[in-house]
Amino acid sequence: MGSSYVELKRECFEANMEVPRQHLAILTWGNVSVIDRRAGVFAIKPSGVPYEEMHPDDIVVVDLDGEMVEGRLRSSSDTLTHMVLYNSFLETGGIVHTHSPYAVGWAQALKPIVIYGTTHADHTVEDIPCTPPMADDQIQGDYEEQTGWQIVSHFQELGLNPLEVEMVLVGSHGPFCWGKTALKAVHNAVVLEEVAKMALITLQVDPETKRLKKTLRDRHYDRKHGPQAYYGQE
Amino acid sequence: MGSSYVELKRECFEANMEVPRQHLAILTWGNVSVIDRRAGVFAIKPSGVPYEEMHPDDIVVVDLDGEMVEGRLRSSSDTLTHMVLYNSFLETGGIVHTHSPYAVGWAQALKPIVIYGTTHADHTVEDIPCTPPMADDQIQGDYEEQTGWQIVSHFQELGLNPLEVEMVLVGSHGPFCWGKTALKAVHNAVVLEEVAKMALITLQVDPETKRLKKTLRDRHYDRKHGPQAYYGQE
Amino acid sequence: MGSSYVELKRECFEANMEVPRQHLAILTWGNVSVIDRRAGVFAIKPSGVPYEEMHPDDIVVVDLDGEMVEGRLRSSSDTLTHMVLYNSFLETGGIVHTHSPYAVGWAQALKPIVIYGTTHADHTVEDIPCTPPMADDQIQGDYEEQTGWQIVSHFQELGLNPLEVEMVLVGSHGPFCWGKTALKAVHNAVVLEEVAKMALITLQVDPETKRLKKTLRDRHYDRKHGPQAYYGQE
Amino acid sequence: MGSSYVELKRECFEANMEVPRQHLAILTWGNVSVIDRRAGVFAIKPSGVPYEEMHPDDIVVVDLDGEMVEGRLRSSSDTLTHMVLYNSFLETGGIVHTHSPYAVGWAQALKPIVIYGTTHADHTVEDIPCTPPMADDQIQGDYEEQTGWQIVSHFQELGLNPLEVEMVLVGSHGPFCWGKTALKAVHNAVVLEEVAKMALITLQVDPETKRLKKTLRDRHYDRKHGPQAYYGQE
Repeated sequence: MGSSYVELKRECFEANMEVPRQHLAILTWGNVSVIDRRAGVFAIKPSGVPYEEMHPDDIVVVDLDGEMVEGRLRSSSDTLTHMVLYNSFLETGGIVHTHSPYAVGWAQALKPIVIYGTTHADHTVEDIPCTPPMADDQIQGDYEEQTGWQIVSHFQELGLNPLEVEMVLVGSHGPFCWGKTALKAVHNAVVLEEVAKMALITLQVDPETKRLKKTLRDRHYDRKHGPQAYYGQE
Repeated sequence: MGSSYVELKRECFEANMEVPRQHLAILTWGNVSVIDRRAGVFAIKPSGVPYEEMHPDDIVVVDLDGEMVEGRLRSSSDTLTHMVLYNSFLETGGIVHTHSPYAVGWAQALKPIVIYGTTHADHTVEDIPCTPPMADDQIQGDYEEQTGWQIVSHFQELGLNPLEVEMVLVGSHGPFCWGKTALKAVHNAVVLEEVAKMALITLQVDPETKRLKKTLRDRHYDRKHGPQAYYGQE
Repeated sequence: MGSSYVELKRECFEANMEVPRQHLAILTWGNVSVIDRRAGVFAIKPSGVPYEEMHPDDIVVVDLDGEMVEGRLRSSSDTLTHMVLYNSFLETGGIVHTHSPYAVGWAQALKPIVIYGTTHADHTVEDIPCTPPMADDQIQGDYEEQTGWQIVSHFQELGLNPLEVEMVLVGSHGPFCWGKTALKAVHNAVVLEEVAKMALITLQVDPETKRLKKTLRDRHYDRKHGPQAYYGQE
Repeated sequence: MGSSYVELKRECFEANMEVPRQHLAILTWGNVSVIDRRAGVFAIKPSGVPYEEMHPDDIVVVDLDGEMVEGRLRSSSDTLTHMVLYNSFLETGGIVHTHSPYAVGWAQALKPIVIYGTTHADHTVEDIPCTPPMADDQIQGDYEEQTGWQIVSHFQELGLNPLEVEMVLVGSHGPFCWGKTALKAVHNAVVLEEVAKMALITLQVDPETKRLKKTLRDRHYDRKHGPQAYYGQE
């Protein structure tokens, strides 16, 4: 009997294969999901499968309560984090979690990535947020689900719009990125890693470097999101 | 109807494709232009197009007032910066802007790259200049055009000859390089990134390292540019 | 006359070829061995042979007293270190020694790699141990055999279980990793290098970063090793 | 009319092509030479030719007074440095100069690379020497020839044997390596770059790291060079 989710699983598989291709994770690390909002399900990488051995049929389909709908393997251990983000960030079409080393380094140091230049500003004019350490009861409870809530509540506290800041560092852990599509989410993860690397080099050249001035941040916001946007082809 | 600029667009396309090949930028970042001085136009990368999807016909042709002459896509958001440089540095044949991470790191730290060794001296005997932060009215006005003027006026203040220093860091932003041809400009961007990386490693080995002594700088200048030049095959 | 160890040597050869493929060592550096517990012998890389010239027939077979059983080349200079580990860590199926640069950097600095995040915790919830400098009489005696004893006694002092911590830094030297199979050992060496790199980046972002909190270490231990383990497909 | 040096030029060409393959230099940087001691000539890379465009016939043959014997291009600007080394280090068969970034970083900081571990000790038990800045009259005179003399006199001052230390950093400039063959010289340049990188990582982990203890240096010297040497297949 055939699957109702052939296309969704194929899209999820292709986006996952971008992770090793873009050097965002090694071995079995990292995972990408993609949602079908009408069907109320999302497809996600299985847990612990090496990228070079993965097949589209290995992709697991899960509903928005986190229950498995289709699949012969256990889904990624981060599945419930993805579920919370889909339930909270309603315009998100795809999510990726990676272990790219510079982003992980900032996350492990529990530091947001300060905006130092226009490379960063062309994608978001805010610092890349880093969630604080989780409370012990969150860790000992539904750990992965709580990781999702930690992200959502941190965005609320900072007043950040997930359509304008499509990436976060989970403290002591690593990056989660999202976007309108799974490929856009992976693209954001590539940007995050490069910005994380550039920010560290900046501090190594001068540890006293200051945040990009506000007029420049505003200008880059406007040229991408403003009424007379002229960045890109859209 | 055919294009009058087939060759110019082809040359521009080829030089742009060197950017990802030389690891100078990822995704859609960076752009190369090449000028036809007789026709008074330059060809430049379109905005926001990934290198692996770009086709020679996507290249945009613009005149020296920044008006589009030919093209089906919007030209790079940095087009007016290129225009100002072509209008000011009259022997320049090609220009490249990249987001290579070490050069960006120095630019974000607002620091010129001090000349520490002969690798640097074989290309220029000056520090690689870094423009100061732009004034708010420059940013809020014709931002990209002002970026060009910021480069030109910084060269004037420092008394630098754009034929001898073919590269600059735009503060908080990143590198622009130029040369007699577009390929030579990209070659200079490769040199800049390597020199930026070496300078940081030098400071990491010893933060007190001093600028290369003047006799060595003079010697390297003379063996390349002096009356008895003996460096390279020209 | 045929070899009795064709399969063992083939497995050893394949695992050794993963070392350059995974960028764990250059030139002739590094070595992998694999044991046949029933036959009481292990196969190991020959000394000083470049990976790209190595052939399965070059692999040397040695018994658990370190005596050569089969081979036309001298075995790796680290053979007796492997022998001691096989004799002490009785569930080990394969061992790898590499010269991967970040792991070597920590080993040369004589520092254990502190656990800063979940990437590390998904593999072991302990710091990666680093053996103290060897005593002069150990160095001047059976140096390579003593290197093995140094590892074993350091694990005993720290109360570490070699099934839960499958990697060590030998002080002033570099990493040894092991696992149920030779390929799992190489996989662990890949993890170690990535964790070593991430830990250094973490300290470069913030030199005051603290060890991962205990509740998170316990949680990651349980989700992999606990009675309700749900990490991976096993 | 045919060349008398077809084989010598072929060997030189092949060794030069290892330089970009091993990531020791970019563009036209770096050069390898190989000597025919019986004929009293050495073959060397031409000046300023990109590796990917170089052909065996482009290799230049020079005698031990630095006079061109055969060639249609100008020889490397470092030719006289090679000449002095061949005239002084009489058992040298090949020489390479690279611009590999970590070795250049140490050279620009004017610091010898301290021996911190066994990776370094397996190749030489001494720090990698770094020549002091050249005197102004050396720079203004026969600069490249004086660079060779600077290396030779630094080895004499430190009492170093060029058969045991086959590499040097020229202060403010970069590495020169040599060996019995040109390929062995390039191999040494690969080792030097890796050791330079590991030494910097070591200092980044702990800036107070001390030189490898003498008993370990002696042991590694003996196992490679002593009467009962057992390292490698020779």
